[in-house]
Amino acid sequence: MSRFATTPKPPYYAVIFTNQRTPGDNGYDAMGEAMASLAMTQAGCFGIESTRDKNGLGITVSYWQDEASIAAWRANAEHAVARARGNSTWYAHYELRVAKVERAYNGPK
Amino acid sequence: MSRFATTPKPPYYAVIFTNQRTPGDNGYDAMGEAMASLAMTQAGCFGIESTRDKNGLGITVSYWQDEASIAAWRANAEHAVARARGNSTWYAHYELRVAKVERAYNGPK
Repeated sequence: MSRFATTPKPPYYAVIFTNQRTPGDNGYDAMGEAMASLAMTQAGCFGIESTRDKNGLGITVSYWQDEASIAAWRANAEHAVARARGNSTWYAHYELRVAKVERAYNGPK
Repeated sequence: MSRFATTPKPPYYAVIFTNQRTPGDNGYDAMGEAMASLAMTQAGCFGIESTRDKNGLGITVSYWQDEASIAAWRANAEHAVARARGNSTWYAHYELRVAKVERAYNGPK
């Protein structure tokens, strides 16, 4: 399965989540997989790109049709439970940015 | 040194570069470090967040004041040389998206 998201012609939205994990798994990997699968079933979700290095620095970018689809995902009850555990347990620090994609390219050329 | 970018209050721009490396280094690591250092000296560059997993899937997000600062970086001659090598040698596939950051948060809460 491709680790690249299949996105339409812009405009669409990106949620950029950069995060540093705390040590230990503490149920993170299973929840992460469950949340990625659940997000992909949400209306307006185009896909997710995610990676993390051996030092625990991760970047996950999810792509959405519009602000309404992002808001609906935020209101999902299972996602809210996962976010609470993220705040209490899994993340030493995170930055979350919501951005409107205006232009997109791919390659190599 | 923090691996998180220090960004101002939105709006500002994000360049999201998701990429799959080809096998072998082929000069990539040295060039990557040089390009990150050079980008940070450019007017309007707020910072870079970057990570890559053991399977070679990387995400680098650079943050910029406006479209003009992104265009100036694109026109940089050393950056152009690096991009050419990226296309010829280093990347099996990449997706590049330019997005306007509208909202931003951090945590944990």
